[in-house]
Amino acid sequence: MSMCKSADCKLCEFLESKEGMETSFNRVEQQKNKCKFGKDGVCCKLCSNGPCRITPKSPRGVCGADADTIVARNFLRAIAAGSACYVHVVENTARNLMEIGKGKGNLKIKSPETLDQLANAFGIKEEDLNKKAIKVAETVLSDLYKPRFEKMELVKKLGYEPRLKNWEKNGILPGGAKSEVFDAVVKTSTNLSSDPVDMLLNALTLGVSTGIYGLMLTNLLNDVMLGAPKIRAAKVGFRVIDEDYINIMVTGHQHSDIAHLQDRLIDEDIKKKAEAVGAKGFKLVGCTCVGQDLQLRGEHYEEVFSGHAGNNYTSEAVLATGGIDLVVSEFNCTIPGIEDIADKYKVKMICIDDVAKKKNADYVPFSMKDAENISDKLIDEALNSYKERRGSVNIDIPKDHGHDDVITGVSEGSLKEFLGGTFEPLIKLIAEGKIKGVAGVVGCSNLTAKGHDVFTVELTKELIKRNIVVLSAGCSSGGLENVGLMSPKAAELAGDSLKEVCKALGIPPVLNFGPCLAIGRLEMVAVELAKALNIDIPQLPLVLSAPQWLEEQALADAAFGLTLGLPLHVAISPFIDGSAVVSKVLKEDLVNITGGKLIVQEDVIKAADELEAIIEERRKSLNI
Amino acid sequence: MSMCKSADCKLCEFLESKEGMETSFNRVEQQKNKCKFGKDGVCCKLCSNGPCRITPKSPRGVCGADADTIVARNFLRAIAAGSACYVHVVENTARNLMEIGKGKGNLKIKSPETLDQLANAFGIKEEDLNKKAIKVAETVLSDLYKPRFEKMELVKKLGYEPRLKNWEKNGILPGGAKSEVFDAVVKTSTNLSSDPVDMLLNALTLGVSTGIYGLMLTNLLNDVMLGAPKIRAAKVGFRVIDEDYINIMVTGHQHSDIAHLQDRLIDEDIKKKAEAVGAKGFKLVGCTCVGQDLQLRGEHYEEVFSGHAGNNYTSEAVLATGGIDLVVSEFNCTIPGIEDIADKYKVKMICIDDVAKKKNADYVPFSMKDAENISDKLIDEALNSYKERRGSVNIDIPKDHGHDDVITGVSEGSLKEFLGGTFEPLIKLIAEGKIKGVAGVVGCSNLTAKGHDVFTVELTKELIKRNIVVLSAGCSSGGLENVGLMSPKAAELAGDSLKEVCKALGIPPVLNFGPCLAIGRLEMVAVELAKALNIDIPQLPLVLSAPQWLEEQALADAAFGLTLGLPLHVAISPFIDGSAVVSKVLKEDLVNITGGKLIVQEDVIKAADELEAIIEERRKSLNI
Repeated sequence: MSMCKSADCKLCEFLESKEGMETSFNRVEQQKNKCKFGKDGVCCKLCSNGPCRITPKSPRGVCGADADTIVARNFLRAIAAGSACYVHVVENTARNLMEIGKGKGNLKIKSPETLDQLANAFGIKEEDLNKKAIKVAETVLSDLYKPRFEKMELVKKLGYEPRLKNWEKNGILPGGAKSEVFDAVVKTSTNLSSDPVDMLLNALTLGVSTGIYGLMLTNLLNDVMLGAPKIRAAKVGFRVIDEDYINIMVTGHQHSDIAHLQDRLIDEDIKKKAEAVGAKGFKLVGCTCVGQDLQLRGEHYEEVFSGHAGNNYTSEAVLATGGIDLVVSEFNCTIPGIEDIADKYKVKMICIDDVAKKKNADYVPFSMKDAENISDKLIDEALNSYKERRGSVNIDIPKDHGHDDVITGVSEGSLKEFLGGTFEPLIKLIAEGKIKGVAGVVGCSNLTAKGHDVFTVELTKELIKRNIVVLSAGCSSGGLENVGLMSPKAAELAGDSLKEVCKALGIPPVLNFGPCLAIGRLEMVAVELAKALNIDIPQLPLVLSAPQWLEEQALADAAFGLTLGLPLHVAISPFIDGSAVVSKVLKEDLVNITGGKLIVQEDVIKAADELEAIIEERRKSLNI
Repeated sequence: MSMCKSADCKLCEFLESKEGMETSFNRVEQQKNKCKFGKDGVCCKLCSNGPCRITPKSPRGVCGADADTIVARNFLRAIAAGSACYVHVVENTARNLMEIGKGKGNLKIKSPETLDQLANAFGIKEEDLNKKAIKVAETVLSDLYKPRFEKMELVKKLGYEPRLKNWEKNGILPGGAKSEVFDAVVKTSTNLSSDPVDMLLNALTLGVSTGIYGLMLTNLLNDVMLGAPKIRAAKVGFRVIDEDYINIMVTGHQHSDIAHLQDRLIDEDIKKKAEAVGAKGFKLVGCTCVGQDLQLRGEHYEEVFSGHAGNNYTSEAVLATGGIDLVVSEFNCTIPGIEDIADKYKVKMICIDDVAKKKNADYVPFSMKDAENISDKLIDEALNSYKERRGSVNIDIPKDHGHDDVITGVSEGSLKEFLGGTFEPLIKLIAEGKIKGVAGVVGCSNLTAKGHDVFTVELTKELIKRNIVVLSAGCSSGGLENVGLMSPKAAELAGDSLKEVCKALGIPPVLNFGPCLAIGRLEMVAVELAKALNIDIPQLPLVLSAPQWLEEQALADAAFGLTLGLPLHVAISPFIDGSAVVSKVLKEDLVNITGGKLIVQEDVIKAADELEAIIEERRKSLNI
């Protein structure tokens, strides 16, 4: 079967070796013939008079909606759904913290410092650690559940002052995050809104709530429960899978859902259970964003976490190594393609959040109140699966895949600590021109922007060559680390001055912030830099690219980036090309609203040129 | 320009007379070429690897999702959006009641009896009328805002006992209505759920919350504020537009949003303002569901309400009469097609709920707290528009369109009262076989099931001919009343025994329950009948048809109907034909779950045959 390329050649070789096994890499070829109406966003399926498609001869749907209305409606609904995903995650995360504070799950607060940071920011005065956790969680939940006409309170406590002013001026401060999503879904239903500009502003409102809550807060709440990231070298790729262990692959975005499990797996009684069936113990194998979260906090989980194997579109191959005994999924990006491969390799699948229910998975609803029993259940299932499948399933783990020296655990906190407790050294390097600027290369991996991770890797190489340091968060990190760009030796690929910096510090030119949630950490870094310089975020020599965005969530991330006033590049248009109004607002007018700008560019060099030009322009304005 | 048919010939003639004016009736011809993938529900636009389309050669999307997953995902998301619409409506309605209770808007409770009914059902003990209103409203809002894992409390207080048992057994009792919608949107996002059966059960959960809150409760809360329906003969059609008045057309679904306006318009000082510009006063012209709501409660608004002009797809023509001076819209079904016609006829457009913001409308956010100022603003706009446009715009109102003797105001309460305070006479007529059974012909109007209202009217005629009494709620009512089927003389079209009943009682064979919200009233009638017979709803000789369903909301209504255990006919498949699993569950397996059954039948006679056969089967089971 023909298949698409990957930036990760060893992955391709491995997939090619599995004859007769169909994966997403093959299906992307079968689905090559794309619908132009869908790609342009001018297809509407909202009512039984449809589907309608906008063409020069039929410029309106039956109801009268034109291309601008239809495109804006599709776009806002996708962002609403993406925002919903992140808000679902932060809600569960806050609930888990609340339950832990109440003593459920028998878990300890692992970063009281982060809890203090949040309590201080929220204005919570409380001495008792557990009570403080409960109050912090309640404050978050209370905001999420406000009606739409009541503005959320933490936005003002967590947002950067110049941005808050901008958001207020533009009327995009969000009401209760869940109600904002809810009403955006209503707004985009049949025969409701027809106003593209109103819908785009609404998308920005969702960007703010997604960013502050779904992204920034989720990270910090997780840090409280699971430990703050620490920089360390780690193994990545298929080599992390050790067949001597009972291996559980976790997929999703809700790290705290496995907080209990990951501690429990290394308890002596549990290890003995593994030994009793002939294994050395249990290991968690990271995949998708929750794997990135495990990697980010890997310092605290040396024993149980074997390392990050790969991103979303690597998961099918991970199962095909035969080394995984159980998949525990709690959210996306758990692609349906793993189902058949799990069946073929007799891998038990268990889903612990019904929103991510896979066809062939058992459903074991997670609740922190019942965490101990759930962990026992998952452990039993892993043991049974190990016993049943080992011996009857071929194990083929390409141990030459991946790297041993990936620099992981980079966060707003660990980076600052690394720099000596202040961002001044970084600012100095930028001011001196040794680092020309900063690019966040973030978001997903897809298979269509030149292939799996191809655009992401090529663009990153092009940027570091131009002495632009790259920060990555999302499945993009999984791709970049597996091809070696996050190992210190990648310094050789950077431009002369960036190379010098990297070598002096012993770091790679591409910094691994972990999961897509960590886009919220990039924002915190940006705020630190802007604060130190006493400027607003759009004045920084900082650009964003989500070259291989995939999901609705990525579009919600994008909306956040645009509210921050940042230029945001994507290699694939977010289904807006059919509308002149939507395209103009996002690509041109927005600069005068939030400062943000959407750049759609499918050529790597041209994209790098444009991002570099913006950085240079910003440097000029700052007189550096 | 070629155009589609309407069951309402005079409407067609009128549209044909407006040369050069494009309406939905023309566009339906331009959009005739339908996308098969969209119609079958096998197109997926959830990620940048797509759009993917399922074909025999490409049976899965890039991610691995098959037709069952894609169809179920699209279906559940549409139902979630439809449910969101109704929940938005009930939330605003409850908030309006709360504010009125607090003395805002200077409005009185118009039906203390309905308020008592609700307070009793909710278990609220409170003597003070206003405090009672506040408590009732708060109880509703509190349920809507519960998290998903907390079941809503009023379901158990309002649901019919045998149904509650069924819903509990099948695990479809809803948690907080807004969170249920929210998580269904999450569930249907990229790479989340792939399980079609779980998604269909989730759709049923949304059906329950939509029905009990969005439908049933919205009606009753509105009755409290606006008066309970009373049966009366009323004018319908274009004839209701009187050019001597300043005419405000209201569109939407939120009757209480105009509660203040409709009282204010007939105050002496306001009438004088109208007279000062040469008009006799102000009139509200009904259109879409809020017009049906006005008509339903018309007994209380004889002076200000001129009558219901027509349903969703009649609204373009209503504006083209030139007789309307201002459109006040607060929700769907305000079709975008009216925008150009409003511009052409210089009709000012104001939207009072941003979810329904029209491109060319001013936005005046409604809040009961500010109702008095908002009414003044709307009145000023209507005055200005009248002054500016009259004289310069051609007025052409076909006064021969419509009827003077439509029986309106039918509700669960007014019907019971009409029958002598008990449903026994109706049960007796059914038991004797004079009325063979009851069919709810409900939902929207579309232009594709044989044309505008064509299927609805033909099916209704076929059913009454077979002595099946028809109850209608939704834009279907607007169609049926405009063609005369809700006038007493329509008895002539009924079968012999039904004709006899109608003539004896002086009623038409098609009873007008008003807006789509009143599907909740049909449920209350069904419960009354079932209770009297001590049986469950699916045992009743009662069937549903939403022949010309249009919107996402209609699919949420459909989900409610299916949870009630009723057979539900539609003439256009709800985009599910591409999935064998989804089709089988809804058309076959569901009978053994809730008792409900989806019937897709695009032939009028065959549909009537199937519905009649079910009624006869039920009669047999009941030994009648």
